[in-house]
Parts: sequence; C-alpha cells; structure tokens
Amino acid sequence: MLINRTRDVRDALFHLRRVENTSIQSQVREMLVSAILEGQIPADEALPSSRKLARTLGVSRNTIVIAYQGLVDDGYLTARERSGFYVNGDIREGNRPLSVPKEFSDGLTPRWEDLFRIHPSRQQNIQKPLQWQSYPYPFIYGQVDQELFPIAEWRECSRQALGKKGMDAWTSDTHGSDDALLVEQIRTRLLPRRGIRATDDEVLVTLGAQNALYLLASLLITENTTVAMEEPGYPDVRNTFLLKTKRVIPIPVDDHGLVVDHRLDQCGYVYVTPSHQFPTTATMPLERRRALLERSISGDFLIIEDDYEFETNYVSEPTPALKSLDTAGRVLYVGSLSKTLFPGLRLGYMVGPRALIKEARALRRLMLRHPPNNNQRTVAMFLALGHHETMVHRLHRAYRERWQAMGEALNRHLPDSSRAPTFGGTSFWVRGPEGQDATELAARAIQKGVLIEPGRINFMANDAPNNYFRLGFSSIPTDRIEPGIRILANLIRG
Amino acid sequence: MLINRTRDVRDALFHLRRVENTSIQSQVREMLVSAILEGQIPADEALPSSRKLARTLGVSRNTIVIAYQGLVDDGYLTARERSGFYVNGDIREGNRPLSVPKEFSDGLTPRWEDLFRIHPSRQQNIQKPLQWQSYPYPFIYGQVDQELFPIAEWRECSRQALGKKGMDAWTSDTHGSDDALLVEQIRTRLLPRRGIRATDDEVLVTLGAQNALYLLASLLITENTTVAMEEPGYPDVRNTFLLKTKRVIPIPVDDHGLVVDHRLDQCGYVYVTPSHQFPTTATMPLERRRALLERSISGDFLIIEDDYEFETNYVSEPTPALKSLDTAGRVLYVGSLSKTLFPGLRLGYMVGPRALIKEARALRRLMLRHPPNNNQRTVAMFLALGHHETMVHRLHRAYRERWQAMGEALNRHLPDSSRAPTFGGTSFWVRGPEGQDATELAARAIQKGVLIEPGRINFMANDAPNNYFRLGFSSIPTDRIEPGIRILANLIRG
Repeated sequence: MLINRTRDVRDALFHLRRVENTSIQSQVREMLVSAILEGQIPADEALPSSRKLARTLGVSRNTIVIAYQGLVDDGYLTARERSGFYVNGDIREGNRPLSVPKEFSDGLTPRWEDLFRIHPSRQQNIQKPLQWQSYPYPFIYGQVDQELFPIAEWRECSRQALGKKGMDAWTSDTHGSDDALLVEQIRTRLLPRRGIRATDDEVLVTLGAQNALYLLASLLITENTTVAMEEPGYPDVRNTFLLKTKRVIPIPVDDHGLVVDHRLDQCGYVYVTPSHQFPTTATMPLERRRALLERSISGDFLIIEDDYEFETNYVSEPTPALKSLDTAGRVLYVGSLSKTLFPGLRLGYMVGPRALIKEARALRRLMLRHPPNNNQRTVAMFLALGHHETMVHRLHRAYRERWQAMGEALNRHLPDSSRAPTFGGTSFWVRGPEGQDATELAARAIQKGVLIEPGRINFMANDAPNNYFRLGFSSIPTDRIEPGIRILANLIRG
Repeated sequence: MLINRTRDVRDALFHLRRVENTSIQSQVREMLVSAILEGQIPADEALPSSRKLARTLGVSRNTIVIAYQGLVDDGYLTARERSGFYVNGDIREGNRPLSVPKEFSDGLTPRWEDLFRIHPSRQQNIQKPLQWQSYPYPFIYGQVDQELFPIAEWRECSRQALGKKGMDAWTSDTHGSDDALLVEQIRTRLLPRRGIRATDDEVLVTLGAQNALYLLASLLITENTTVAMEEPGYPDVRNTFLLKTKRVIPIPVDDHGLVVDHRLDQCGYVYVTPSHQFPTTATMPLERRRALLERSISGDFLIIEDDYEFETNYVSEPTPALKSLDTAGRVLYVGSLSKTLFPGLRLGYMVGPRALIKEARALRRLMLRHPPNNNQRTVAMFLALGHHETMVHRLHRAYRERWQAMGEALNRHLPDSSRAPTFGGTSFWVRGPEGQDATELAARAIQKGVLIEPGRINFMANDAPNNYFRLGFSSIPTDRIEPGIRILANLIRG
C-alpha cells in the first residue's frame, strides 16, 4: 500500500495556516496554492477527494468544492472525469527555483559601511513597541483608536474607489499628476478650515506629512543652509534636516510655542508646529504668529509650517494657520490626513507657490512617482461623502473627554509634576521630578503594563534634561486613564 | 410667498454632480454634504421633503430617505417631529472660512527660482497623454490593460485586507517595518522564480521600483561618484542619478544588452536592466551576465540590477537574475509589482546585504515612513491566494499573442525599419528610416489616433539619433495592432 502511505504523508502537508483575519475559504485556497507552487503534489496523482480533505481539515465539504473549482478556473488544477483533480503542470513553469550560490567569496564582497554616503540608521529616533495594543495602559502617541474609526464607511469608499468603470483613475501610472477629485477636496474642504485658499497647481499630494517635509528639505536645503528647529522638537524632521546640513539650530520653545527673537535671523528656514507644538502641545497665539511673520520679512527667512493636529482644540476655536496670515508669500504649508484617518495610510499634502510645487512635483516623480492612486481616490470619496467631517467631530468629542480625564488624573496623582497649559492635542508633555530619568521610568512602567514615551529624544542639545516624558491619549480608553496614571505616579514616587 | 421663492432658488442648488463611477446613493449624499458644509441651507429652514427632492433629482424616494437618515446618524441633520430635517449647526463649526489676505505684498515675496538647490523640473522626461484610453491605437508603454486585470479578485483581497480584526496591520504607523506577510510572499513566491534567496532583513518593500532606485542613489551616490548608465536607457533613473552627480557615463547597448568592457571600470556603480533592456527590450544572455559579474570584481564596481519584466519571455525560459549568479555580493536587486499588478499601485522591493537594507530602511523612514499598509496587506493576500500567479500566466498568454501580431505587422508594413531581435517584453524598439524625425512622426500619428513614443528622450548624448521610437503593446488589443501599424507605415512613407 505504498500509494496510500505516500498519500498519508502528503495529506499531512495540508494544514490550515491561520493567515490573520482571512476567511476559511481563503485559508483553504492559500494552503492549496502553496502546496501546488512548492511542488508538494505530484502532477500524476489526484488530490484528495473533497470529502476526505474536508474531514482532514475540519471544514465543510462545500468549502473544498468551491476551492477546487476556483483553482480549476485559475489554471492551477485540471479536472479529469471520474478520476478527480490534478495539478496543472503549466502553472509551475518558471517556478522551479534556480541554483543559487551559497556563500559569497571572501575578499570580493564590498565593505558596505565604507560605501554609504549618509548613515540614517545611526540617527537617534523614537522607538515604540509595535505591539502596543497588547498593553493595558498605552499612553502612546500617534496611533489610531480602532473603536473610533468608521471602518464600514472606509470600506465602502474603498469599494467604490476600486470600481471597474473608473479603473484608469486608480490603475494607471499618472506620473506627476494627482487625483483631481482629491485635490479638489483638499482645496475646498480642508484648506478653508485653516483660512487657506489655493489653486490646483499650488497643492501637491504627498505620502504623508513626512514625505512633504523630505521633499522640501531636498529642494531647499544644502550644507550651507541654516535651519531653525524647535527645541524640543520633532526628531524625524530634525533628522531629515541633518541629512542635508549640519547647520540645524535649536531654538527654545515656551508656553506659546517657538520663541521669536533675533536667533531666527541667522536662518534660511524656520520649521514650526504652531497648532500644537511637537512635543509640548503648546498652541502659538495669534500675536506670536504675527510676530513670527513680521520677523520672517525683517530677518529674511522662510517658514515651514507643519500644521499638525489643528483639529484638536478643546477650549476655543482653532487659531488661523500661519499660511492664512502670510502677506509676503513666505510660508510653506504641510498638512496631514494620517492623524484623522489612520497613520498606516500615509497621505498628506503641501501648499506653496506654483514654482515650488512644480519643482516638488518633478522631484516626487523621481522619488516615488505619486501616492498610490487607489488610496487617493478612496480618501477623495471619504471626504466628498462627508465621512471625514463626521470622524473629526467624533474624534474631537472622544479626545476632549480623555483630555479632561488626563488633566484630572495628573492633578490628583502627580500634583508635583509640571506641565505647560494646553488647549488641545492628543498628548500631555510632563516634566517629572528633578533627577528622575524618564527612560528608566518608562522601562519600569512597561513591566506594569503602562506605556509612556521618554522625552529625551525630542531634544537636540547634549545636556538636555532627562526628566520629561509624553503621555499620549489618542489610543487609550477614558476609563483606563486614571488607573494608568495612578500606577505611573506610584512608580515615580518609587 | 417669499418662503416658497427662496426655496425654489435653493432647490436649484441641489443638482447631482456626477462623481465618476459612484452610486446614485453616494451622489445624493455628496450633494447634500456639500450644500450643508458650504452653508447653502439655512439652519432654521427644513430641507425639502424626501418626496419633493426625489422628484427634483429624478431618483427614487427611498434613496433620499436613506440619505437623510444617514446624515442624521452622522450628525449633519437633526430630525424634528412633524416638521422635517434641519441642518445641525454644530457640523459647520470650524468650517467658517477665515479671512484671507488677497494679494502678496510686492517685494517681500521670495524669489523662489533662486532658492531651489536642485531643479528637477528642468530635466527632460517622458511625456505621455494621460487620456491614452481614448485613442484607438495606443502603442504606449507601461500601463495596464484593464481587460486583463482580475478586478474581482483584487477587490476581494482589498476587502479582506481591510478587516476589522486585523486593523492594526493596516491602520498603524509601523515606522520602519514592512508587512510581514508581504515580505514572506516576496521571499518565498517571487524571489525563487529569479533564483534569489534572501532573509527578511535583506528585503525592503518600496513605493515601486522607482522609489528603490531613489533610495539607493541617495545612499550611495554623491558628486564624486561615477555611474554607468545604459545608452539608450531609462530616463527617470538617469535623472535621479544626475540629481546626485554629474558623472553619469552613457555606455552603449547592443543586441545583448549593456556592452561589457573597460569603460565600466571607471565607474563605482553600473545600472543595468538585463531581463529586457529599457528601451530596446534586448535580453542579456547568460555569457554576458557572467562577464559583467566577473568584470565587477576586476573593475571593482557594484551593479544595480533593475529586473524589469522578467516574466515576459515568449520563446524560452527566463534567464536567471544577475543577483542569483552573484558570488561576490556585488549586486543590488530591484523588483517591481507595478508591471504585473497595476502601475498606479506603486509597490516594489529591493534585495541587498543586511547592512544596506538597514540604512535604506532608516532613510525610507524619513522619506515616507513605509508604503501604505493597506496596500501591502492587499498585495500579500493577492500573492498568497495565488491570484498573482494566475495573472502572470494570463498576461503572458495575451502578450505573446500581441507580440507575434506586432512582429508580423511590422514585417509586413515596415519591412525597412530595423529592430533588434527580441524574445519578450511589452514593446518593440524600432529604428525608422534615416532622416525620419520620430517626434514629428508621433505628432502626426496622434492625429490619426495612433500613439507612439519617440525614442530620443532615452538617449543621453546630445547627438543621439532622432529616428527611433517605441511601440508598446501591453494596452492595445490584438485586433487593433495590424490596422494601427498600417496607419503608421503610411505616415512614415509620407
């Protein structure tokens, strides 16, 4: 009974691998496709009957029947009458692994470390646990709260965006162009909220705000350029500037955001996050905005405005964007859809003068062509159907509630810690007791299921304080806030 | 009857704007959302009854009922008993356009042209009509044939990828990380077809092959680096190299692809498209591949292999990738999913030594973080379920048929034009008669509905010939090929 033994062995190859969150139907298909492509099923031998395989896998027979039929349709299997299903030899053509040299010869391999012209991996940057969802008290920043995301609406927009009739809109390589519907939505729905008017050729869609900043840095900054950076400030932007120039100057931040004085005059570009300064969340008041704009003329510098979390003001109306107050054409504006949609999407935009957008578009073409068209179209639909607006309101309500709970819990459990007055954002920036090392605190907190972000990484100065940390609240339910802060306070008191 | 007149005027505002390919339901919702957010409906006045609005718009009353109810659920409308639906004032908060300065003051605006450190928009590049689908004979290159794309399967993968349970996989900002399932599929399904083995940390997912090449150029090339470029060759890559260094050296291409001789020894990097040379489609035979690899050791240069269209060999098995023959660790490999899926997707990958992938990953983080996670997951599913394999086979059959039709039509109608022997690819590279200006020919052809691509742009030399052109066949149905070539031949003969 050799055949039966072979079959038994082979049948053991059929096991369902749980690809996360896929249907049983998909799992069965994936298993069969793997076995076929990897050559585990001889071409001259019938596959197990649907009845038998269903029993082996513990699924319904109908599932197997559908899977077999789909694989016949797609050319993986052929059906032979009265004999069963067989692997179609054609499908494995080109799938025979070619011979591969095993080891590289010594001495011939390049010394890669000597060849890199830049070393971005040596830069310090924020590290976050990717599995933050598994911690009970994730005071982390910048991730989506899945309970607040309108997944049904998003899926419906995605479905409509992937329509057969509009296929060219999402399948074609459109070179430098953006989805016209998305640009229209940005111009007419998003920018007016910030007081900004722009024409189509003053807007560029980018792969998130980070990509917009990288494009600007590549266009405008070389080793002779001096750039003003908020201190503390956003490490990813500082690292981007530092790839281009060593002349990055830290400028202090106070309760009103970036300090505006003579130190800016030595700079060609000033990077600023006026809506909610990163990481302190301070909002720059109107007077300081005006002072910064006036100084940009007298000091002859340009402003890169990262208009970060403008939606989240809980006690008053949002302050107008710098760009909307700019009478001298000196502000380059960067916006993001990642905060209100979801960060994994990577979609943002920049607004600037036509000449600059033209260059940025040409550079983007070389860097990545364009943000994926299917996502551009889905977001355009999401905006056009008003879902984004609804979501911003929903987030606003949820975040305000958490912001209040955070304030109360910090007042109660950490009355000695200091924090700037905040009006919004999605995090608190906390100064722990003198001598407290927040990195060490974070390591102890994680043992108790509490995730916090040490603040040291946001400073550029070597002698920066170690006792700051950030507590994000965009991903933690309100009822976990007080218990989490209590645990943290106990750890601080030691 | 003032109220009625006001209403009549306002009702005229309600008109269905045909957002391409969306359902009537979505169009009605979009119209209402626009009217509400733009303040066209006074807060104290009821919206038209569902019956009336249905009549005005010529849609079923039920469509309006569903739209109104959805907008109540989302906070756009409130329902007052016996009185109808009213705009919820809250939703317009923050939507009042702020005042905007109208004109920039003279003399204060920066002279942007003086500020750009690079001028990518001045580079010459391929221009293609975006509306190519509307021409009867689109011999254009690199776009998808919508008839061949398995849209139902793609949509199903997209639907499953956007699952509620796996939300962290696609919503989170994953910083430097890639979708583990996609990396596994690339390693186990795609790379073995090219004879390449790689570990997880030797693979980086990129926003298309273009993005991989930009990352490599940014990491490895500065103004002192000499780079060998195929002549003719791929303009987008040449332009990328030229942003980093002036020392880009054109190396001729013959029927076997890039010519391997002493000229390569002066270079630090050699860019090559061995599967089907861009734009000539010449396949580099095994002997020349071995010669190139040996020369990379004796001449001490590194190879950037753009393994472009390896799937499309119609007369023989694909030749193994350079990377699979590389015993000295000198080949950096770039692959694309845009050609077999769709170019608008922007998804590719690179394979290289661990140290290089680590740097490229850190640089990608600053440039764009990561390719959108929803797309990474969808493609991973598409690969895992075997749809990609099926599609490659389907494309292969269709393209082979068109390739034969192209060859026959060219032999028949343009026997005097010269072309290299080809074994695959998705285009023909044709040398027209001496003295023929292909740019001028293309302009005349477009009048007759025939799109061709003048070849001049692919050359770097100033005195390059003007009589080459490219005829792509990936987007033209077989039965249009012969008539299109006939028209073109008549134009050439004048």
